[in-house]
Amino acid sequence: MHSFGYEIKSRQGRARAGIFHTPHGDLETPLFAPVGTQATIKSVTPSQLEELNAGLVLANTYHLYLRPGDETIAQLGGLHTFMHWDRPILTDSGGFQVFSLANTRKIDAEGVTFKSHIDGSTHRITPEKSILIQENLGADIIMAFDECGDPYDLEKNQVALRHTHAWAERCVKAKTRSDQALFGIIQGGVYPELRIQSVDYLASLDLPGYAIGGLSVGETKQETLAILELVDTYLPENKPRYLMGVGSPEDLITGVQRGVDIFDCVLPTRLARHHTAISRTGRINVANARYTSEKSPLDDTCSCYTCRNFSSAYLRHLVLAKEILAATLLTIHNLNTLLTLMRDIRFAIISGRFNEFAADFLEHYEKCA
Amino acid sequence: MHSFGYEIKSRQGRARAGIFHTPHGDLETPLFAPVGTQATIKSVTPSQLEELNAGLVLANTYHLYLRPGDETIAQLGGLHTFMHWDRPILTDSGGFQVFSLANTRKIDAEGVTFKSHIDGSTHRITPEKSILIQENLGADIIMAFDECGDPYDLEKNQVALRHTHAWAERCVKAKTRSDQALFGIIQGGVYPELRIQSVDYLASLDLPGYAIGGLSVGETKQETLAILELVDTYLPENKPRYLMGVGSPEDLITGVQRGVDIFDCVLPTRLARHHTAISRTGRINVANARYTSEKSPLDDTCSCYTCRNFSSAYLRHLVLAKEILAATLLTIHNLNTLLTLMRDIRFAIISGRFNEFAADFLEHYEKCA
Repeated sequence: MHSFGYEIKSRQGRARAGIFHTPHGDLETPLFAPVGTQATIKSVTPSQLEELNAGLVLANTYHLYLRPGDETIAQLGGLHTFMHWDRPILTDSGGFQVFSLANTRKIDAEGVTFKSHIDGSTHRITPEKSILIQENLGADIIMAFDECGDPYDLEKNQVALRHTHAWAERCVKAKTRSDQALFGIIQGGVYPELRIQSVDYLASLDLPGYAIGGLSVGETKQETLAILELVDTYLPENKPRYLMGVGSPEDLITGVQRGVDIFDCVLPTRLARHHTAISRTGRINVANARYTSEKSPLDDTCSCYTCRNFSSAYLRHLVLAKEILAATLLTIHNLNTLLTLMRDIRFAIISGRFNEFAADFLEHYEKCA
Repeated sequence: MHSFGYEIKSRQGRARAGIFHTPHGDLETPLFAPVGTQATIKSVTPSQLEELNAGLVLANTYHLYLRPGDETIAQLGGLHTFMHWDRPILTDSGGFQVFSLANTRKIDAEGVTFKSHIDGSTHRITPEKSILIQENLGADIIMAFDECGDPYDLEKNQVALRHTHAWAERCVKAKTRSDQALFGIIQGGVYPELRIQSVDYLASLDLPGYAIGGLSVGETKQETLAILELVDTYLPENKPRYLMGVGSPEDLITGVQRGVDIFDCVLPTRLARHHTAISRTGRINVANARYTSEKSPLDDTCSCYTCRNFSSAYLRHLVLAKEILAATLLTIHNLNTLLTLMRDIRFAIISGRFNEFAADFLEHYEKCA
């Protein structure tokens, strides 16, 4: 039996700096997890990720179930061996992507039937099936199968919440491996009473961590922040909180300010493949003609491989020439920006100056964005 | 004044193992140079290339002249700084690519007028212009501007040879930098008398090295090998010989057997982007269904990052999922195969067992190809 204990080392306001123990090592929180949808963080090697000192990475159950198949990955020794990543991995439940990516899907009280976006074949995922797939994949953190409703549809959110709670309980029962931490997912749209109900129900299952789902799906920023504050107030404080699909620098800061410990997002890797760099002051369009002869790096405060060794002019050239190296070097830079930001946030919390750090960051970020 | 002396350390038959001195370090020959057409070896970082212990890399004058421009690269400190490669670089003259890539081109006795494949703009390259561009780029080895005729057209080869020789002499006169070695290019199609004439003329210029051009452009393998033997017989032996555009393992072996010291080719990097691995026994289609659950690496005799850490099944998954990492990992493997092969060839020559090595290699390579 593995322990997934979460220790809070320091607090400032709602912000927390902690350590989450997993079978593949300790995670220092708050943290940002790069996304490796198909068992690879797009355009970088595991060795480059290690050099960036990434802790947790995410992989997607829906994609890996369809291709190459969770049983194939299990035969090959599990996801850590498959993708050559010895540090902690988190897999989602497949639910969100079934709802958003699969060609057609039909939700019932027992689960979801859908058609593959790859070949149109029909599949069904239930809570038990989601756990089976995630046990075959073998990540350190796995997610309960949930349903995410339209944020402004009360009736749909009530149904989604019934499913999410019943399914979470079935996931707990279906789980057989002791070396994986099952996180519950709080739903409820923009409705405070539903959110509180969801926190109460899932907290009663005494899970090792909780995700806040159904955010960044169309609601306003103000609503997002209000829900985070509400959920923070009601959640057990000794469990890590994971805000799914959020990763812009300003959202990381405001999330940590509201008690979030774990974030993931495709943003830094996706922007990199679309010639956009993330710096500590805003976004940079690397194709901009102003960089034609620019000797300095993209961000002269950055310590990454890209900024240490390459001029902005070279990166612009790679972008215009459509070279793969552009994606690799910008991915390294963007991930370094977010990973370093999270380490700086953590240090600021521990040293009691997070409020100033956050205010200063947001002031400079908005100015240049 | 830099010395570009070539020292032959060991011989076996026509095969030579030597050291070529350049301002960016010594090159151990025979060697294979990866191609970085647009100032990047496609899909790998300079750091990954260093880990592979690549010596010389090639970049293309035609491409870099058009984008980002040789003057821009000069302002940024030259090609070594621009692409962050501190080891030796070779640039071609632009001639071959103008002839094969530009939309329309018109050759006269003074040079070539052509249209850019990027934007259709009109440009003119003369021998003097080619040297000026290559001096702006600042590679260690630069090439004389030449004309490559149809291998079987005697009359065209006679004209091309007149141009090639007159242009080589103009390149020598135009050259101003002492830290670049200008290589001449031997032309003459499949015609022994033209080839001998070309060797004699270019040898009289006492250049620091010689390329054998106009091969692998449509003639038979037997004709290629016959011309290599002929050229080897007539070339001054204390100068390195460079066979342009050749890089399949069997051609490296048969080239070294005929006195070639330097090779370059896009083959290993291009095959990698088309899911093909090169092993010591032949080519591997990584998408093959036989690798679906294959735990072993692509090549269990290979010491590269890819083969040390990833199963064939994972590589097949990346290929099918169209992930960029497939190109990176296969490029690392393919380059390692050729770079290691060249080091093994060199060691075999020095230890007097190259004939056995070559026979053994060719026997096993052809069996499984």
